[in-house]
Amino acid sequence: MSDVKKAVLAYSGGLDTSVILKWLQDTYQCEVVTFTADVGQGDELEAARPKALQCGIKPENIYIDDLREEFVRDFVFPMFRANTVYEGEYLLGTSIARPLIAKRMIEIVGLTASDAVVHGATGKGNDQVRFELGAYALKPDIRIIAPWREWDLLSREKLLTYAERHGIPVEMKHRQGGSPYSMDANLLHISYEGRHLEDPAAEAEESMWRWTVSPEAAPDAAEYVDLEFEKGDLVAINGTRMPAHELLALLNQLGGKHGIGRIDLVENRYVGMKSRGCYETPGGTILLPAHRAIESITLDREVAHLKDDLMARYASLIYNGYWWSPERLALQTLIDHTQQPVNGWVRVKLYKGNVIVVGRDSKTNSLFDSTIATFEDDAGAYDQKDAGGFIKLNALRMRIAAKLANRPH
Amino acid sequence: MSDVKKAVLAYSGGLDTSVILKWLQDTYQCEVVTFTADVGQGDELEAARPKALQCGIKPENIYIDDLREEFVRDFVFPMFRANTVYEGEYLLGTSIARPLIAKRMIEIVGLTASDAVVHGATGKGNDQVRFELGAYALKPDIRIIAPWREWDLLSREKLLTYAERHGIPVEMKHRQGGSPYSMDANLLHISYEGRHLEDPAAEAEESMWRWTVSPEAAPDAAEYVDLEFEKGDLVAINGTRMPAHELLALLNQLGGKHGIGRIDLVENRYVGMKSRGCYETPGGTILLPAHRAIESITLDREVAHLKDDLMARYASLIYNGYWWSPERLALQTLIDHTQQPVNGWVRVKLYKGNVIVVGRDSKTNSLFDSTIATFEDDAGAYDQKDAGGFIKLNALRMRIAAKLANRPH
Amino acid sequence: MSDVKKAVLAYSGGLDTSVILKWLQDTYQCEVVTFTADVGQGDELEAARPKALQCGIKPENIYIDDLREEFVRDFVFPMFRANTVYEGEYLLGTSIARPLIAKRMIEIVGLTASDAVVHGATGKGNDQVRFELGAYALKPDIRIIAPWREWDLLSREKLLTYAERHGIPVEMKHRQGGSPYSMDANLLHISYEGRHLEDPAAEAEESMWRWTVSPEAAPDAAEYVDLEFEKGDLVAINGTRMPAHELLALLNQLGGKHGIGRIDLVENRYVGMKSRGCYETPGGTILLPAHRAIESITLDREVAHLKDDLMARYASLIYNGYWWSPERLALQTLIDHTQQPVNGWVRVKLYKGNVIVVGRDSKTNSLFDSTIATFEDDAGAYDQKDAGGFIKLNALRMRIAAKLANRPH
Amino acid sequence: MSDVKKAVLAYSGGLDTSVILKWLQDTYQCEVVTFTADVGQGDELEAARPKALQCGIKPENIYIDDLREEFVRDFVFPMFRANTVYEGEYLLGTSIARPLIAKRMIEIVGLTASDAVVHGATGKGNDQVRFELGAYALKPDIRIIAPWREWDLLSREKLLTYAERHGIPVEMKHRQGGSPYSMDANLLHISYEGRHLEDPAAEAEESMWRWTVSPEAAPDAAEYVDLEFEKGDLVAINGTRMPAHELLALLNQLGGKHGIGRIDLVENRYVGMKSRGCYETPGGTILLPAHRAIESITLDREVAHLKDDLMARYASLIYNGYWWSPERLALQTLIDHTQQPVNGWVRVKLYKGNVIVVGRDSKTNSLFDSTIATFEDDAGAYDQKDAGGFIKLNALRMRIAAKLANRPH
Repeated sequence: MSDVKKAVLAYSGGLDTSVILKWLQDTYQCEVVTFTADVGQGDELEAARPKALQCGIKPENIYIDDLREEFVRDFVFPMFRANTVYEGEYLLGTSIARPLIAKRMIEIVGLTASDAVVHGATGKGNDQVRFELGAYALKPDIRIIAPWREWDLLSREKLLTYAERHGIPVEMKHRQGGSPYSMDANLLHISYEGRHLEDPAAEAEESMWRWTVSPEAAPDAAEYVDLEFEKGDLVAINGTRMPAHELLALLNQLGGKHGIGRIDLVENRYVGMKSRGCYETPGGTILLPAHRAIESITLDREVAHLKDDLMARYASLIYNGYWWSPERLALQTLIDHTQQPVNGWVRVKLYKGNVIVVGRDSKTNSLFDSTIATFEDDAGAYDQKDAGGFIKLNALRMRIAAKLANRPH
Repeated sequence: MSDVKKAVLAYSGGLDTSVILKWLQDTYQCEVVTFTADVGQGDELEAARPKALQCGIKPENIYIDDLREEFVRDFVFPMFRANTVYEGEYLLGTSIARPLIAKRMIEIVGLTASDAVVHGATGKGNDQVRFELGAYALKPDIRIIAPWREWDLLSREKLLTYAERHGIPVEMKHRQGGSPYSMDANLLHISYEGRHLEDPAAEAEESMWRWTVSPEAAPDAAEYVDLEFEKGDLVAINGTRMPAHELLALLNQLGGKHGIGRIDLVENRYVGMKSRGCYETPGGTILLPAHRAIESITLDREVAHLKDDLMARYASLIYNGYWWSPERLALQTLIDHTQQPVNGWVRVKLYKGNVIVVGRDSKTNSLFDSTIATFEDDAGAYDQKDAGGFIKLNALRMRIAAKLANRPH
Repeated sequence: MSDVKKAVLAYSGGLDTSVILKWLQDTYQCEVVTFTADVGQGDELEAARPKALQCGIKPENIYIDDLREEFVRDFVFPMFRANTVYEGEYLLGTSIARPLIAKRMIEIVGLTASDAVVHGATGKGNDQVRFELGAYALKPDIRIIAPWREWDLLSREKLLTYAERHGIPVEMKHRQGGSPYSMDANLLHISYEGRHLEDPAAEAEESMWRWTVSPEAAPDAAEYVDLEFEKGDLVAINGTRMPAHELLALLNQLGGKHGIGRIDLVENRYVGMKSRGCYETPGGTILLPAHRAIESITLDREVAHLKDDLMARYASLIYNGYWWSPERLALQTLIDHTQQPVNGWVRVKLYKGNVIVVGRDSKTNSLFDSTIATFEDDAGAYDQKDAGGFIKLNALRMRIAAKLANRPH
Repeated sequence: MSDVKKAVLAYSGGLDTSVILKWLQDTYQCEVVTFTADVGQGDELEAARPKALQCGIKPENIYIDDLREEFVRDFVFPMFRANTVYEGEYLLGTSIARPLIAKRMIEIVGLTASDAVVHGATGKGNDQVRFELGAYALKPDIRIIAPWREWDLLSREKLLTYAERHGIPVEMKHRQGGSPYSMDANLLHISYEGRHLEDPAAEAEESMWRWTVSPEAAPDAAEYVDLEFEKGDLVAINGTRMPAHELLALLNQLGGKHGIGRIDLVENRYVGMKSRGCYETPGGTILLPAHRAIESITLDREVAHLKDDLMARYASLIYNGYWWSPERLALQTLIDHTQQPVNGWVRVKLYKGNVIVVGRDSKTNSLFDSTIATFEDDAGAYDQKDAGGFIKLNALRMRIAAKLANRPH
């Protein structure tokens, strides 16, 4: 072994990817490029540099990239244009970050003339699929190394033993069992899986949640927030325009403060099993109903229904890792087209876990016509007699069928 | 005029239907049968009897029927089996009562040998459609009279003048403008439309809401509730089995107490306009996520996704009044079939507007297999290496396309 | 009467629209603009001019427009990009011409400062809907006059009497009952409805068909034809590039010669009734499988399936008259996007009613990779072992369910 | 090796499965049960018995089962109820037989106390998936052996060498290269893949086709055939009732005689590649339009459209091997429900490759109402004025949008 000369590793500097780095060097005897992405997970990413250097990575082979704006602008916001929810509950926080990581890794493969990419996702989860489908779609001949599917370090104990034997620093928390949860975070959400959550009947412990206070602990006073949209995307909060990732960060802060965005569910993984996950998506949980609200006055009924009919399919594509597929791109073309008139503002009230839409308006694109909808005299804007013919023709096929059914035999 | 001999009138005993009754007697000079349905709207329905008698209705022509159990068992619960939501928000509280009213009116037409039905819905709304499509589907040659589309009493003032001229008692509240809202209620919800709500930018007034306290006014202590399901239907609350309508009434009480189930939205009516509506659906707002939760562990992934893909279509059918259509029946057959394994319990936590699912289990039908999903050693229940082939074949079409795209030209 | 000052009439110069013209002048006492469109129906359209002049129409109010290229390029071809078929059989020949007529009439309304449009479609058919929905979408305040829904000339006899009384020339064929069929023609098809066809059990008479010979009468020798596509549109036949309408005309000629494109069906009208129609669509019947064939080697599987899943909905939109609706435009955006790689050629064999695809290729966009598909040794292009994992994970959810079902109770 | 004690082999007695039998005995050293299914492929199946005996199979371990009636009644006909076509062309002849083979093999596993099943499908095709998904769904812990994914006999030459070395009789045709095509046959169709067909641009050779004459060679006289349906299934031909498999056999004979049912296409395999296939489906090609025709007069419009919208999904499920999945069963429930009123007869004309529907009727369930559809006076059955209101309300949302778009800015 091995035909791999240089491999780009998705590297956080934590225990798992440090072990992978060492294992990679030993097993494949290849040069390693480390790639650490800032997608808003909130860690101090520069800490990865000295660790990588210590493992013998050349300085020019260490990539630490701030992808936050690209993440929100080109991935999160396009997804929210479709009001995307997986299985009625999940806002796809983990799923939506993977295609960006894959894209950047393939770019680094090009920059460093590497021939493989390596990731630390396990063989049971969706992330391996999302990551690898993206990599293959962008570079079809790329070699992909998934250590968890290759090695035999399949328990935490074996991993720790391996780390100690190879002089990889193990923090006290890992020795003590570490966090009881498998976690993933980015600007859209933080997720928790495993351990106590593996019993779907058991309530999650309050101490697990990291980004939001509990509704009980949230302020007793509600807060009103104005959200402004252009072409379906959030562009300003309370009148202040900001870059996309700052908008989402501010929404996260608001949501976290008011106990908004906790979700606890059992989802169906693409690899075939059910899995219990808990998520905090404070900003996304505010954004979703607000986007629906601005669409409710600016979008044509049938366009909105077409979007609704396609949403679950689009959500599954993202969940399953097909962001870079031609069918996702085709759907996105339709979705983006529909968002041209989605301009205006929405007012939401945040209070102890609740996101309450209280008002919405569009100076330029409102299709709400109060002269027609009114219960008062509409001065002829709508002729109620038209409804008679409308109903009669819509009923015709059912009347013909009922006559046939009632016919004496 | 007229060819109408005997007409069944949907009669509440209130001002509008009292005026319709009089107008009907005058205009059509026909015998009138009054029909007052108890679908849980909470009014004292027997009060309609003396009013009807006073208007000259024969005792045998007065029908006051308790339809609450049929309403919840045969209409509300079947709808919830599909996790039905219209346009992402609306739980279809008004829509789902209309087909039952239509069905019972057509039954009364048969019992009384009548030849027409009369309803008080306006020519601008969806209810006329729901009511008439149902009536036509059940009795194709029925004569339908919709006074609001025929008469010229199109303003409230004209209506009051007509009432006074014909000695119809007008309560003080009507003289003073009455409720500022057009309202409709049944066991599933109460709705508000019109007046102040006709500006979608304006927040609804706190004084409008009738069934729920505000989240702010709800108790400071959370309440846990256990919901038990059989074949997709709620059958017990906190271990107590009850008839369907009592279960929903209890959920309404719990939701109302905890500030749960207020919705404020702009919806697209079937007759073509946008309309702002506010709804209180306390019980339904608890039931929906609970039903999703029990499905999350008992339903196959692809069956669940098939249901999700069809849900918006099914919701539109109900919203648009096609409950009695053959396509709704066909969809219901599929939906009901899927609910066989949906058995188990869900625990929800109710707190100041929040419905939080905290646990779910099924002794008989759980597809959650912790031996496979576990992050720990699974003793061979799942071979992680299988994922490699799974990804490779799923990526194949994209790899072939990418190779073609990368080919030098 | 009347508030109508100037009306644009869709005018063929035939009996029906001549009667409408006279009736319009009498009833509305308005100035009339006649509009005669050449969409390839094959009539001598200039004959309409003297007839219109004779009825008192001013020369500048007579519009005779050749819309053939626009019709095929902007309506027929975009529709074929979606492989559009209504109810499994109908190629939408009539439906697709109406939105173009509506568009041009509204343009002429603008050019002539008219305030109304008038069409000769009956109140039972789909064409009134297609025409009027288009007109309203393009000019929301337009006044539409549909004489068949207003006047009392509801039988052919009354129409003839009216014509004679007003000196409208009636050809001998009309006195003798005229064609037994209601017909409509354009470059895509000719349709037949009514009379003998009103019994769906009865075979259409051979003498009815006008554009195609019967398969029996077609040549005994097959003919091979090469069709070239660019971005999903036909651009050349047998190596010769032509304007869109000439391509379709040539296909019609080829199809007509070989007995191709007759269809006999019962369809569901938007207005609620079933209707028996016979159609000749010779060119379209060649184009459809050829387009599918070029897509079969150039389109990604999931994109093709997405198109298939949306096709029936798109077909219904066109059939029902929603060409100018925002939802059709949104779908078209998706469809057009998918056609970028649909480039290449298809060889079809035409023989006595059969269109047989015998070969297809794309120099630039073929996704057919014979090195992978081969039954022979593929030199490692595809690892058969991958299939094991692929199947295992796809089966996982069903295996978990089966284990549960087999569990002893 | 090995943990396999007794394995059920899908055994045709031909070269490939004979080699597999030997390889299985050698490699797994297990007892082998041979299973030979008659699904109407037309071979003399009893010939498999002496061959199996000669290979040392015990008499009680030889299963030769006539599955023809079950195949057509429980698999082919249910599929045709949905008008099922994959990718616009393919009638799923191969796909629909696999779940039955899988079901029977699992039954034999039970009868013989075996612990594995073995099939001869390659690792590149769909059949392995269909077979194995079925087996896993029916017996989740079954061991599946797919020799083509395990052994190294990956070229025809190696296979012949192996056969000769182990004394497996090799017919002359195999030494000479055998049929140039990979073929599969059952009562619904015969398929051809491989060799000359691997160039999608090349026309299939006339000599390839086995079941149908060419349209050119078909009789010069057309033949009329009457097909009678009950609940969506064919029950009689020309007035004669027969078991399902005899009906299909007769249709095959009629189609074959008249040159009907050849298809030449490029399809998208579930395992990710495109593949060129040629198929003869003579009976199915008659049955499909006939079933559509009887539905056209007996099925409600919206039910028919719902079926159309779901058809492609249902077809993909069958193509991909998910016959025994819960989602296919759920869809089947809906499809079967819709077929209750699909009763009546259809007359088709067969002529040189053409299947022409010329008439259809239903004494009991026709929704075709000529009194309404007529172009003549309908005596008030339909009020044309209703169409005005119908169009007005359907246009309303587009008019509101157009007014907004036209508003001066």
